[in-house]
Amino acid sequence: MKTLAVIGCGLIGGSMALAWKKAGVVDQVVACDLDEEELDEALDMGVADSVTTSIKEAVTQADIIAVAVPVLAMGKVFSEVARYMRKDAIVTDVGSTRCTVIRKAREGLGDRFDRYAPCHPIAGGELPGVKHADADLFKNKAIIATPDIGMDPSVMRVIEEAWEKTGAVVQTMSPELHDDVFASVSHLPHVLAYALVDMIARESNAQIKLGMAGAGFRDFTRIASSSPVMWRDICLTNREAISQELQRYRHELDELQRAIDDSDSEYIEACFDNAMRNRRGLVFTRKAEKRTE
Amino acid sequence: MKTLAVIGCGLIGGSMALAWKKAGVVDQVVACDLDEEELDEALDMGVADSVTTSIKEAVTQADIIAVAVPVLAMGKVFSEVARYMRKDAIVTDVGSTRCTVIRKAREGLGDRFDRYAPCHPIAGGELPGVKHADADLFKNKAIIATPDIGMDPSVMRVIEEAWEKTGAVVQTMSPELHDDVFASVSHLPHVLAYALVDMIARESNAQIKLGMAGAGFRDFTRIASSSPVMWRDICLTNREAISQELQRYRHELDELQRAIDDSDSEYIEACFDNAMRNRRGLVFTRKAEKRTE
Repeated sequence: MKTLAVIGCGLIGGSMALAWKKAGVVDQVVACDLDEEELDEALDMGVADSVTTSIKEAVTQADIIAVAVPVLAMGKVFSEVARYMRKDAIVTDVGSTRCTVIRKAREGLGDRFDRYAPCHPIAGGELPGVKHADADLFKNKAIIATPDIGMDPSVMRVIEEAWEKTGAVVQTMSPELHDDVFASVSHLPHVLAYALVDMIARESNAQIKLGMAGAGFRDFTRIASSSPVMWRDICLTNREAISQELQRYRHELDELQRAIDDSDSEYIEACFDNAMRNRRGLVFTRKAEKRTE
Repeated sequence: MKTLAVIGCGLIGGSMALAWKKAGVVDQVVACDLDEEELDEALDMGVADSVTTSIKEAVTQADIIAVAVPVLAMGKVFSEVARYMRKDAIVTDVGSTRCTVIRKAREGLGDRFDRYAPCHPIAGGELPGVKHADADLFKNKAIIATPDIGMDPSVMRVIEEAWEKTGAVVQTMSPELHDDVFASVSHLPHVLAYALVDMIARESNAQIKLGMAGAGFRDFTRIASSSPVMWRDICLTNREAISQELQRYRHELDELQRAIDDSDSEYIEACFDNAMRNRRGLVFTRKAEKRTE
Protein backbone atom coordinates (compact mmCIF):
# COMPACT_ATOMS: atom_id res chain seq x y z
CA MET A 1 0.00 0.00 0.00
CA LYS A 2 1.94 3.00 -1.29
CA THR A 3 0.80 6.50 -0.37
CA LEU A 4 1.64 9.73 -2.17
CA ALA A 5 1.34 12.99 -0.29
CA VAL A 6 0.88 15.98 -2.59
CA ILE A 7 1.73 19.26 -0.88
CA GLY A 8 0.06 21.97 -2.96
CA CYS A 9 -2.85 20.50 -4.88
CA GLY A 10 -3.19 22.71 -7.96
CA LEU A 11 -2.97 21.92 -11.67
CA ILE A 12 0.40 20.13 -11.50
CA GLY A 13 0.05 18.54 -8.05
CA GLY A 14 -3.46 17.34 -8.92
CA SER A 15 -2.41 16.03 -12.34
CA MET A 16 0.57 14.25 -10.76
CA ALA A 17 -1.73 12.56 -8.22
CA LEU A 18 -4.08 11.37 -10.99
CA ALA A 19 -1.23 10.26 -13.27
CA TRP A 20 0.75 8.36 -10.61
CA LYS A 21 -2.36 6.56 -9.40
CA LYS A 22 -3.46 5.71 -12.94
CA ALA A 23 0.03 4.34 -13.62
CA GLY A 24 -0.15 2.21 -10.47
CA VAL A 25 2.88 3.92 -8.95
CA VAL A 26 0.91 4.65 -5.77
CA ASP A 27 -2.29 3.20 -4.31
CA GLN A 28 -3.60 6.23 -2.52
CA VAL A 29 -3.14 9.97 -2.42
CA VAL A 30 -3.40 12.42 0.44
CA ALA A 31 -3.64 16.02 -0.73
CA CYS A 32 -2.48 18.93 1.42
CA ASP A 33 -3.32 22.53 0.60
CA LEU A 34 -4.12 25.77 2.42
CA ASP A 35 -7.13 26.33 0.12
CA GLU A 36 -9.97 24.15 1.40
CA GLU A 37 -12.01 24.73 -1.77
CA GLU A 38 -9.19 23.18 -3.77
CA LEU A 39 -9.20 20.24 -1.35
CA ASP A 40 -12.96 19.74 -1.71
CA GLU A 41 -12.56 19.86 -5.49
CA ALA A 42 -9.70 17.33 -5.22
CA LEU A 43 -11.94 14.93 -3.28
CA ASP A 44 -14.89 15.38 -5.64
CA MET A 45 -12.69 14.74 -8.66
CA GLY A 46 -11.06 11.67 -7.11
CA VAL A 47 -7.68 13.37 -7.29
CA ALA A 48 -7.16 12.56 -3.61
CA ASP A 49 -8.47 9.81 -1.31
CA SER A 50 -8.06 12.06 1.71
CA VAL A 51 -7.27 15.72 2.23
CA THR A 52 -5.79 17.86 4.98
CA THR A 53 -4.55 21.37 5.59
CA SER A 54 -1.81 19.97 7.86
CA ILE A 55 1.56 19.11 6.32
CA LYS A 56 2.30 16.96 9.38
CA GLU A 57 -0.85 14.87 8.87
CA ALA A 58 -0.13 14.44 5.15
CA VAL A 59 3.54 13.62 5.51
CA THR A 60 3.51 11.13 8.41
CA GLN A 61 1.55 8.58 6.37
CA ALA A 62 3.39 9.05 3.04
CA ASP A 63 5.90 6.88 1.17
CA ILE A 64 6.51 9.64 -1.37
CA ILE A 65 6.04 13.35 -0.73
CA ALA A 66 5.62 15.61 -3.78
CA VAL A 67 6.04 19.34 -3.15
CA ALA A 68 3.99 21.24 -5.73
CA VAL A 69 3.58 24.70 -4.17
CA PRO A 70 4.87 27.91 -5.82
CA VAL A 71 8.69 27.74 -5.65
CA LEU A 72 9.08 30.59 -3.16
CA ALA A 73 6.90 28.70 -0.68
CA MET A 74 8.98 25.50 -0.96
CA GLY A 75 11.67 26.38 1.61
CA LYS A 76 9.20 26.52 4.46
CA VAL A 77 7.43 23.37 3.21
CA PHE A 78 10.72 21.41 3.04
CA SER A 79 11.52 22.12 6.73
CA GLU A 80 8.00 21.05 7.75
CA VAL A 81 8.33 17.90 5.64
CA ALA A 82 11.74 17.05 7.15
CA ARG A 83 10.29 17.27 10.64
CA TYR A 84 7.50 14.72 10.05
CA MET A 85 8.53 12.48 7.15
CA ARG A 86 9.22 8.77 7.72
CA LYS A 87 12.87 7.67 7.55
CA ASP A 88 12.23 5.63 4.37
CA ALA A 89 10.09 8.24 2.65
CA ILE A 90 11.19 10.04 -0.52
CA VAL A 91 10.71 13.76 -1.23
CA THR A 92 10.41 15.23 -4.73
CA ASP A 93 9.19 18.53 -6.15
CA VAL A 94 7.89 19.83 -9.47
CA GLY A 95 9.23 23.40 -9.35
CA SER A 96 10.05 25.26 -12.55
CA THR A 97 13.41 26.56 -11.32
CA ARG A 98 16.14 24.32 -9.97
CA CYS A 99 19.20 26.01 -8.40
CA THR A 100 17.23 28.02 -5.83
CA VAL A 101 14.82 25.18 -5.04
CA ILE A 102 17.65 22.68 -4.55
CA ARG A 103 19.41 25.14 -2.22
CA LYS A 104 16.15 25.54 -0.25
CA ALA A 105 15.78 21.74 -0.11
CA ARG A 106 19.35 21.41 1.15
CA GLU A 107 18.60 23.90 3.95
CA GLY A 108 15.06 22.73 4.72
CA LEU A 109 15.54 18.96 4.51
CA GLY A 110 18.90 18.99 6.33
CA ASP A 111 20.12 15.40 6.93
CA ARG A 112 17.11 14.12 4.95
CA PHE A 113 18.47 15.75 1.76
CA ASP A 114 19.70 12.31 0.61
CA ARG A 115 16.02 11.28 0.34
CA TYR A 116 15.33 14.14 -2.11
CA ALA A 117 15.03 13.72 -5.91
CA PRO A 118 14.00 16.81 -7.91
CA CYS A 119 12.25 16.27 -11.26
CA HIS A 120 10.71 19.14 -13.27
CA PRO A 121 7.87 18.09 -15.59
CA ILE A 122 7.81 20.22 -18.76
CA ALA A 123 4.04 20.35 -18.76
CA GLY A 124 1.30 22.62 -17.63
CA GLY A 125 -1.52 24.78 -18.83
CA GLU A 126 -2.33 28.45 -18.56
CA LEU A 127 -5.41 27.74 -16.42
CA PRO A 128 -4.39 26.92 -12.84
CA GLY A 129 -6.26 24.99 -10.17
CA VAL A 130 -6.97 21.34 -9.46
CA LYS A 131 -10.19 21.56 -11.52
CA HIS A 132 -7.97 21.53 -14.64
CA ALA A 133 -5.95 18.51 -13.43
CA ASP A 134 -5.48 15.82 -16.09
CA ALA A 135 -4.20 12.24 -15.58
CA ASP A 136 -2.60 12.34 -19.07
CA LEU A 137 -0.94 15.75 -18.70
CA PHE A 138 2.55 14.22 -18.64
CA LYS A 139 2.13 11.64 -21.45
CA ASN A 140 5.12 11.88 -23.83
CA LYS A 141 6.32 15.02 -22.09
CA ALA A 142 9.83 15.71 -20.85
CA ILE A 143 10.69 15.33 -17.17
CA ILE A 144 14.00 17.01 -16.32
CA ALA A 145 15.90 15.27 -13.52
CA THR A 146 18.59 17.51 -12.03
CA PRO A 147 20.87 15.37 -9.81
CA ASP A 148 23.26 17.33 -7.59
CA ILE A 149 25.88 16.76 -4.86
CA GLY A 150 24.49 14.95 -1.83
CA MET A 151 21.58 13.28 -3.61
CA ASP A 152 21.20 9.47 -3.72
CA PRO A 153 21.05 8.09 -7.30
CA SER A 154 18.90 5.14 -6.18
CA VAL A 155 16.32 7.58 -4.76
CA MET A 156 16.40 9.56 -8.00
CA ARG A 157 15.82 6.30 -9.92
CA VAL A 158 12.60 5.64 -7.94
CA ILE A 159 11.15 9.01 -8.93
CA GLU A 160 12.38 8.72 -12.54
CA GLU A 161 10.78 5.27 -12.92
CA ALA A 162 7.54 6.58 -11.44
CA TRP A 163 7.42 9.37 -14.03
CA GLU A 164 8.32 6.95 -16.85
CA LYS A 165 5.32 4.78 -15.87
CA THR A 166 3.05 7.82 -16.49
CA GLY A 167 4.32 7.94 -20.10
CA ALA A 168 6.73 10.82 -19.56
CA VAL A 169 10.28 10.89 -20.98
CA VAL A 170 12.99 11.54 -18.38
CA GLN A 171 16.06 13.60 -19.31
CA THR A 172 18.92 14.58 -17.04
CA MET A 173 20.80 17.87 -16.89
CA SER A 174 22.61 20.00 -14.32
CA PRO A 175 20.49 22.45 -12.28
CA GLU A 176 22.50 25.32 -13.81
CA LEU A 177 21.90 24.24 -17.42
CA HIS A 178 18.21 23.62 -16.64
CA ASP A 179 17.79 27.16 -15.31
CA ASP A 180 19.66 28.70 -18.26
CA VAL A 181 17.71 26.71 -20.89
CA PHE A 182 14.29 27.42 -19.42
CA ALA A 183 15.08 31.07 -18.77
CA SER A 184 15.39 31.35 -22.57
CA VAL A 185 12.62 29.13 -23.91
CA SER A 186 10.05 29.38 -21.13
CA HIS A 187 10.60 32.06 -18.47
CA LEU A 188 11.54 34.94 -20.80
CA PRO A 189 8.62 34.30 -23.21
CA HIS A 190 6.23 34.43 -20.23
CA VAL A 191 7.71 37.77 -19.11
CA LEU A 192 7.43 39.13 -22.68
CA ALA A 193 3.81 37.99 -23.12
CA TYR A 194 2.75 39.45 -19.76
CA ALA A 195 4.57 42.70 -20.66
CA LEU A 196 2.75 43.10 -24.01
CA VAL A 197 -0.75 42.54 -22.61
CA ASP A 198 -0.03 44.76 -19.59
CA MET A 199 1.23 47.53 -21.89
CA ILE A 200 -1.71 47.44 -24.31
CA ALA A 201 -4.24 47.13 -21.45
CA ARG A 202 -2.90 50.41 -20.01
CA GLU A 203 -3.27 52.32 -23.31
CA SER A 204 -6.17 54.74 -23.80
CA ASN A 205 -7.70 52.79 -26.70
CA ALA A 206 -6.98 49.38 -25.13
CA GLN A 207 -10.49 48.04 -25.73
CA ILE A 208 -10.48 48.87 -29.45
CA LYS A 209 -7.07 47.26 -29.80
CA LEU A 210 -7.84 44.12 -27.80
CA GLY A 211 -11.15 43.88 -29.64
CA MET A 212 -9.30 43.59 -32.96
CA ALA A 213 -6.77 41.03 -31.75
CA GLY A 214 -6.47 38.04 -34.07
CA ALA A 215 -5.10 34.51 -33.98
CA GLY A 216 -1.47 35.69 -33.92
CA PHE A 217 -2.08 37.78 -30.81
CA ARG A 218 -4.09 34.98 -29.22
CA ASP A 219 -1.27 32.45 -29.54
CA PHE A 220 1.50 34.94 -28.71
CA THR A 221 -0.25 35.96 -25.47
CA ARG A 222 -1.78 32.60 -24.44
CA ILE A 223 0.85 32.18 -21.70
CA ALA A 224 -0.10 35.60 -20.28
CA SER A 225 -3.15 33.83 -18.80
CA SER A 226 -0.83 31.83 -16.53
CA SER A 227 -0.76 32.23 -12.74
CA PRO A 228 0.88 35.58 -11.83
CA VAL A 229 2.08 34.27 -8.44
CA MET A 230 3.68 31.17 -9.94
CA TRP A 231 5.49 33.23 -12.57
CA ARG A 232 6.45 35.98 -10.13
CA ASP A 233 8.13 33.27 -8.04
CA ILE A 234 9.89 31.88 -11.09
CA CYS A 235 11.25 35.36 -11.88
CA LEU A 236 12.47 35.76 -8.30
CA THR A 237 14.03 32.29 -8.01
CA ASN A 238 15.68 32.19 -11.44
CA ARG A 239 16.53 35.88 -11.30
CA GLU A 240 20.12 35.80 -12.60
CA ALA A 241 19.37 33.68 -15.67
CA ILE A 242 16.17 35.52 -16.56
CA SER A 243 17.83 38.90 -15.97
CA GLN A 244 20.66 37.97 -18.34
CA GLU A 245 18.29 36.74 -21.06
CA LEU A 246 16.09 39.82 -20.67
CA GLN A 247 19.13 42.09 -21.06
CA ARG A 248 20.13 40.18 -24.20
CA TYR A 249 16.60 40.53 -25.53
CA ARG A 250 16.51 44.27 -24.80
CA HIS A 251 19.75 44.68 -26.79
CA GLU A 252 18.10 42.74 -29.64
CA LEU A 253 15.14 45.16 -29.52
CA ASP A 254 17.46 48.21 -29.35
CA GLU A 255 18.94 47.06 -32.67
CA LEU A 256 15.53 46.43 -34.20
CA GLN A 257 14.30 49.84 -33.03
CA ARG A 258 17.27 51.45 -34.76
CA ALA A 259 16.72 49.38 -37.91
CA ILE A 260 13.01 50.23 -38.08
CA ASP A 261 13.62 53.95 -37.41
CA ASP A 262 16.38 54.00 -40.07
CA SER A 263 14.30 51.85 -42.48
CA ASP A 264 17.28 49.46 -42.48
CA SER A 265 15.56 46.97 -44.74
CA GLU A 266 18.56 44.57 -44.93
CA TYR A 267 18.93 44.33 -41.14
CA ILE A 268 15.22 43.75 -40.55
CA GLU A 269 14.96 41.08 -43.23
CA ALA A 270 18.14 39.30 -42.06
CA CYS A 271 16.81 39.15 -38.48
CA PHE A 272 13.33 37.97 -39.51
CA ASP A 273 14.79 35.49 -42.00
CA ASN A 274 17.14 33.93 -39.42
CA ALA A 275 14.23 33.62 -37.00
CA MET A 276 11.92 32.16 -39.64
CA ARG A 277 14.45 29.54 -40.76
CA ASN A 278 15.16 28.47 -37.19
CA ARG A 279 11.49 28.44 -36.18
CA ARG A 280 10.41 26.46 -39.23
CA GLY A 281 13.40 24.18 -38.63
CA LEU A 282 11.98 23.13 -35.27
CA VAL A 283 10.52 20.00 -36.84
CA PHE A 284 11.74 17.56 -34.19
CA THR A 285 10.97 20.03 -31.47
CA ARG A 286 7.56 20.68 -32.97
CA LYS A 287 6.82 16.95 -32.74
CA ALA A 288 7.99 17.08 -29.15
CA GLU A 289 5.83 20.14 -28.67
CA LYS A 290 2.83 18.43 -30.23
CA ARG A 291 3.37 15.73 -27.63
CA THR A 292 3.59 18.36 -24.95
CA GLU A 293 0.29 19.96 -25.89
CA MET B 1 -19.14 37.10 -67.00
CA LYS B 2 -17.15 38.81 -64.23
CA THR B 3 -13.36 38.46 -64.14
CA LEU B 4 -11.08 38.96 -61.14
CA ALA B 5 -7.42 39.70 -61.74
CA VAL B 6 -5.24 38.79 -58.77
CA ILE B 7 -1.87 40.53 -58.86
CA GLY B 8 0.41 38.56 -56.55
CA CYS B 9 -0.90 35.02 -56.21
CA GLY B 10 0.31 33.87 -52.79
CA LEU B 11 -1.59 32.68 -49.72
CA ILE B 12 -3.95 35.69 -49.51
CA GLY B 13 -4.29 36.38 -53.25
CA GLY B 14 -4.92 32.70 -53.91
CA SER B 15 -7.39 32.32 -51.03
CA MET B 16 -9.22 35.45 -52.18
CA ALA B 17 -9.52 34.01 -55.73
CA LEU B 18 -10.94 30.73 -54.38
CA ALA B 19 -13.28 32.47 -51.92
CA TRP B 20 -14.69 35.03 -54.37
CA LYS B 21 -15.31 32.37 -57.01
CA LYS B 22 -16.90 30.01 -54.50
CA ALA B 23 -19.17 32.87 -53.35
CA GLY B 24 -20.17 33.57 -56.97
CA VAL B 25 -18.78 37.10 -56.80
CA VAL B 26 -16.71 36.46 -59.95
CA ASP B 27 -16.93 33.86 -62.70
CA GLN B 28 -13.29 33.57 -63.60
CA VAL B 29 -9.88 34.45 -62.23
CA VAL B 30 -6.69 35.46 -63.98
CA ALA B 31 -3.64 35.25 -61.73
CA CYS B 32 -0.55 37.41 -62.27
CA ASP B 33 2.74 36.72 -60.50
CA LEU B 34 6.47 36.95 -61.20
CA ASP B 35 6.95 33.43 -59.83
CA GLU B 36 5.94 30.98 -62.58
CA GLU B 37 5.98 28.05 -60.14
CA GLU B 38 3.31 29.80 -58.09
CA LEU B 39 1.31 30.32 -61.29
CA ASP B 40 1.57 26.61 -62.26
CA GLU B 41 0.46 25.69 -58.75
CA ALA B 42 -2.44 28.17 -59.04
CA LEU B 43 -3.59 26.52 -62.28
CA ASP B 44 -3.21 22.98 -60.89
CA MET B 45 -5.22 23.90 -57.79
CA GLY B 46 -7.96 25.62 -59.79
CA VAL B 47 -7.18 28.89 -58.00
CA ALA B 48 -6.93 30.57 -61.41
CA ASP B 49 -8.50 29.85 -64.82
CA SER B 50 -5.61 31.54 -66.59
CA VAL B 51 -2.22 32.86 -65.51
CA THR B 52 0.26 35.44 -66.77
CA THR B 53 3.42 37.21 -65.70
CA SER B 54 2.19 40.41 -67.42
CA ILE B 55 0.18 42.90 -65.35
CA LYS B 56 -1.07 44.41 -68.63
CA GLU B 57 -2.47 41.09 -69.82
CA ALA B 58 -4.14 40.39 -66.46
CA VAL B 59 -5.62 43.86 -66.01
CA THR B 60 -7.04 44.58 -69.47
CA GLN B 61 -9.59 41.75 -69.15
CA ALA B 62 -10.55 42.34 -65.50
CA ASP B 63 -13.68 43.79 -63.86
CA ILE B 64 -12.01 43.76 -60.45
CA ILE B 65 -8.27 43.96 -59.83
CA ALA B 66 -6.98 42.75 -56.45
CA VAL B 67 -3.43 43.77 -55.58
CA ALA B 68 -1.97 41.17 -53.18
CA VAL B 69 1.79 41.71 -53.47
CA PRO B 70 4.00 42.69 -50.49
CA VAL B 71 3.05 46.27 -49.59
CA LEU B 72 6.36 47.82 -50.68
CA ALA B 73 5.81 46.47 -54.20
CA MET B 74 2.31 47.93 -54.46
CA GLY B 75 3.27 51.44 -55.64
CA LYS B 76 4.79 50.16 -58.87
CA VAL B 77 1.89 47.74 -59.38
CA PHE B 78 -0.72 50.50 -58.96
CA SER B 79 0.85 52.62 -61.72
CA GLU B 80 0.96 49.60 -64.06
CA VAL B 81 -2.67 48.82 -63.21
CA ALA B 82 -3.77 52.43 -63.85
CA ARG B 83 -2.19 52.32 -67.28
CA TYR B 84 -4.11 49.25 -68.49
CA MET B 85 -7.30 48.95 -66.41
CA ARG B 86 -10.72 49.39 -68.03
CA LYS B 87 -12.61 52.60 -67.21
CA ASP B 88 -15.30 50.67 -65.32
CA ALA B 89 -12.91 48.35 -63.48
CA ILE B 90 -12.43 48.46 -59.70
CA VAL B 91 -9.09 48.17 -57.88
CA THR B 92 -8.68 46.83 -54.35
CA ASP B 93 -5.78 45.55 -52.26
CA VAL B 94 -5.25 43.32 -49.21
CA GLY B 95 -2.20 45.00 -47.70
CA SER B 96 -1.61 44.85 -43.93
CA THR B 97 -0.78 48.55 -43.59
CA ARG B 98 -3.08 51.32 -44.77
CA CYS B 99 -1.71 54.89 -44.67
CA THR B 100 1.34 54.18 -46.83
CA VAL B 101 -0.51 51.90 -49.23
CA ILE B 102 -3.33 54.42 -49.72
CA ARG B 103 -0.75 57.16 -50.42
CA LYS B 104 0.94 54.87 -52.97
CA ALA B 105 -2.46 54.16 -54.55
CA ARG B 106 -3.19 57.89 -54.76
CA GLU B 107 0.12 58.45 -56.57
CA GLY B 108 0.05 55.32 -58.71
CA LEU B 109 -3.61 55.26 -59.73
CA GLY B 110 -3.82 59.03 -60.37
CA ASP B 111 -7.22 59.97 -61.80
CA ARG B 112 -8.34 56.34 -61.36
CA PHE B 113 -8.07 56.65 -57.56
CA ASP B 114 -11.89 57.01 -57.38
CA ARG B 115 -12.10 53.38 -58.60
CA TYR B 116 -10.01 52.20 -55.62
CA ALA B 117 -11.47 50.53 -52.47
CA PRO B 118 -8.96 49.22 -49.91
CA CYS B 119 -10.07 46.36 -47.62
CA HIS B 120 -7.67 44.54 -45.27
CA PRO B 121 -8.71 40.96 -44.42
CA ILE B 122 -7.66 40.05 -40.86
CA ALA B 123 -6.72 36.55 -41.92
CA GLY B 124 -3.65 34.67 -42.93
CA GLY B 125 -1.36 31.88 -41.92
CA GLU B 126 2.31 31.61 -41.10
CA LEU B 127 2.96 29.41 -44.14
CA PRO B 128 3.04 31.53 -47.31
CA GLY B 129 2.46 30.49 -50.91
CA VAL B 130 -0.58 29.67 -53.03
CA LYS B 131 -0.29 25.98 -52.08
CA HIS B 132 -1.73 26.95 -48.67
CA ALA B 133 -4.62 28.91 -50.23
CA ASP B 134 -8.02 28.13 -48.70
CA ALA B 135 -11.48 29.10 -50.04
CA ASP B 136 -12.78 29.38 -46.45
CA LEU B 137 -9.87 31.43 -45.07
CA PHE B 138 -12.05 34.53 -44.66
CA LYS B 139 -15.18 32.89 -43.22
CA ASN B 140 -16.35 34.86 -40.14
CA LYS B 141 -13.18 36.90 -40.20
CA ALA B 142 -12.93 40.67 -40.01
CA ILE B 143 -12.36 42.73 -43.15
CA ILE B 144 -11.27 46.29 -42.36
CA ALA B 145 -12.50 48.83 -44.91
CA THR B 146 -10.56 52.11 -44.65
CA PRO B 147 -12.39 54.77 -46.72
CA ASP B 148 -10.45 57.99 -47.30
CA ILE B 149 -10.76 61.32 -49.14
CA GLY B 150 -11.21 60.91 -52.90
CA MET B 151 -12.64 57.38 -52.76
CA ASP B 152 -16.13 56.57 -54.11
CA PRO B 153 -18.47 55.03 -51.48
CA SER B 154 -20.39 53.09 -54.15
CA VAL B 155 -17.13 51.49 -55.31
CA MET B 156 -16.25 50.62 -51.69
CA ARG B 157 -19.72 49.05 -51.33
CA VAL B 158 -19.04 46.68 -54.25
CA ILE B 159 -15.89 45.35 -52.60
CA GLU B 160 -17.49 45.20 -49.13
CA GLU B 161 -20.46 43.21 -50.49
CA ALA B 162 -18.10 40.84 -52.29
CA TRP B 163 -16.25 40.13 -49.03
CA GLU B 164 -19.54 39.72 -47.14
CA LYS B 165 -20.59 37.04 -49.66
CA THR B 166 -17.47 35.05 -48.70
CA GLY B 167 -18.71 34.98 -45.07
CA ALA B 168 -16.41 37.73 -43.82
CA VAL B 169 -17.54 40.53 -41.49
CA VAL B 170 -16.76 44.03 -42.78
CA GLN B 171 -15.80 46.77 -40.32
CA THR B 172 -14.84 50.37 -41.15
CA MET B 173 -12.15 52.51 -39.55
CA SER B 174 -9.83 55.33 -40.55
CA PRO B 175 -6.47 54.34 -42.12
CA GLU B 176 -4.70 55.99 -39.15
CA LEU B 177 -6.63 54.05 -36.49
CA HIS B 178 -6.14 50.83 -38.47
CA ASP B 179 -2.37 51.29 -38.54
CA ASP B 180 -2.24 52.18 -34.83
CA VAL B 181 -4.41 49.23 -33.75
CA PHE B 182 -2.56 46.63 -35.82
CA ALA B 183 0.85 48.02 -34.87
CA SER B 184 -0.07 47.00 -31.30
CA VAL B 185 -1.91 43.70 -31.69
CA SER B 186 -0.27 42.32 -34.83
CA HIS B 187 2.86 44.06 -36.10
CA LEU B 188 4.66 44.44 -32.74
CA PRO B 189 4.01 40.81 -31.67
CA HIS B 190 5.53 39.65 -34.96
CA VAL B 191 8.64 41.78 -34.35
CA LEU B 192 8.92 40.43 -30.79
CA ALA B 193 8.55 36.78 -31.84
CA TYR B 194 11.13 37.15 -34.64
CA ALA B 195 13.48 38.89 -32.16
CA LEU B 196 13.28 36.08 -29.58
CA VAL B 197 13.94 33.25 -32.04
CA ASP B 198 16.74 35.22 -33.74
CA MET B 199 18.35 35.90 -30.36
CA ILE B 200 18.22 32.31 -29.10
CA ALA B 201 19.33 30.93 -32.49
CA ARG B 202 22.50 33.05 -32.24
CA GLU B 203 23.40 31.77 -28.74
CA SER B 204 26.15 29.17 -28.31
CA ASN B 205 23.82 26.50 -26.90
CA ALA B 206 20.94 27.33 -29.24
CA GLN B 207 20.30 23.73 -30.22
CA ILE B 208 19.98 22.51 -26.61
CA LYS B 209 17.63 25.40 -25.87
CA LEU B 210 15.45 25.04 -28.97
CA GLY B 211 15.43 21.29 -28.41
CA MET B 212 13.78 21.82 -25.01
CA ALA B 213 11.19 24.30 -26.24
CA GLY B 214 7.67 23.40 -25.14
CA ALA B 215 4.10 24.32 -26.04
CA GLY B 216 4.41 27.83 -24.61
CA PHE B 217 7.40 28.60 -26.82
CA ARG B 218 5.71 26.99 -29.83
CA ASP B 219 2.64 29.21 -29.58
CA PHE B 220 4.59 32.35 -28.63
CA THR B 221 6.87 31.97 -31.67
CA ARG B 222 4.39 30.53 -34.21
CA ILE B 223 4.20 33.88 -36.03
CA ALA B 224 8.02 33.89 -36.37
CA SER B 225 7.48 31.37 -39.20
CA SER B 226 5.78 34.09 -41.25
CA SER B 227 7.24 35.53 -44.46
CA PRO B 228 10.25 37.75 -43.60
CA VAL B 229 9.77 39.89 -46.74
CA MET B 230 6.09 40.49 -46.03
CA TRP B 231 6.83 41.50 -42.43
CA ARG B 232 9.89 43.55 -43.36
CA ASP B 233 7.61 45.54 -45.68
CA ILE B 234 5.02 45.96 -42.92
CA CYS B 235 7.73 47.34 -40.60
CA LEU B 236 8.88 49.77 -43.31
CA THR B 237 5.39 50.93 -44.33
CA ASN B 238 3.92 51.23 -40.82
CA ARG B 239 7.21 52.49 -39.42
CA GLU B 240 5.93 55.38 -37.24
CA ALA B 241 3.22 53.39 -35.47
CA ILE B 242 5.41 50.29 -34.95
CA SER B 243 8.35 52.42 -33.80
CA GLN B 244 6.14 54.12 -31.20
CA GLU B 245 4.72 50.83 -29.90
CA LEU B 246 8.20 49.26 -29.81
CA GLN B 247 9.51 52.23 -27.79
CA ARG B 248 6.62 51.83 -25.37
CA TYR B 249 7.34 48.11 -25.08
CA ARG B 250 11.05 48.72 -24.45
CA HIS B 251 10.12 51.08 -21.59
CA GLU B 252 7.86 48.33 -20.23
CA LEU B 253 10.81 45.91 -20.34
CA ASP B 254 13.18 48.46 -18.73
CA GLU B 255 10.81 48.54 -15.76
CA LEU B 256 10.53 44.76 -15.61
CA GLN B 257 14.32 44.41 -15.81
CA ARG B 258 14.65 46.76 -12.84
CA ALA B 259 11.93 44.91 -10.93
CA ILE B 260 13.51 41.49 -11.57
CA ASP B 261 17.02 42.72 -10.68
CA ASP B 262 15.67 44.34 -7.48
CA SER B 263 13.44 41.33 -6.70
CA ASP B 264 10.55 43.82 -6.67
CA SER B 265 7.95 41.17 -6.03
CA GLU B 266 4.99 43.60 -5.84
CA TYR B 267 5.78 45.24 -9.18
CA ILE B 268 6.26 41.93 -10.98
CA GLU B 269 3.06 40.45 -9.61
CA ALA B 270 1.03 43.62 -10.35
CA CYS B 271 2.23 43.61 -13.98
CA PHE B 272 1.61 39.88 -14.48
CA ASP B 273 -1.76 40.10 -12.72
CA ASN B 274 -2.99 43.01 -14.86
CA ALA B 275 -1.91 41.11 -17.99
CA MET B 276 -3.53 37.87 -16.82
CA ARG B 277 -6.85 39.54 -16.00
CA ASN B 278 -6.96 41.34 -19.34
CA ARG B 279 -5.88 38.29 -21.34
CA ARG B 280 -8.39 35.99 -19.62
CA GLY B 281 -11.00 38.72 -20.09
CA LEU B 282 -10.68 38.50 -23.88
CA VAL B 283 -13.80 36.35 -24.03
CA PHE B 284 -15.49 38.23 -26.86
CA THR B 285 -12.18 38.71 -28.58
CA ARG B 286 -11.36 35.06 -28.10
CA LYS B 287 -14.59 34.18 -29.89
CA ALA B 288 -13.61 36.66 -32.58
CA GLU B 289 -10.20 35.01 -32.67
CA LYS B 290 -11.74 31.56 -32.95
CA ARG B 291 -13.49 32.97 -35.98
CA THR B 292 -10.21 34.28 -37.29
CA GLU B 293 -8.39 30.98 -36.89
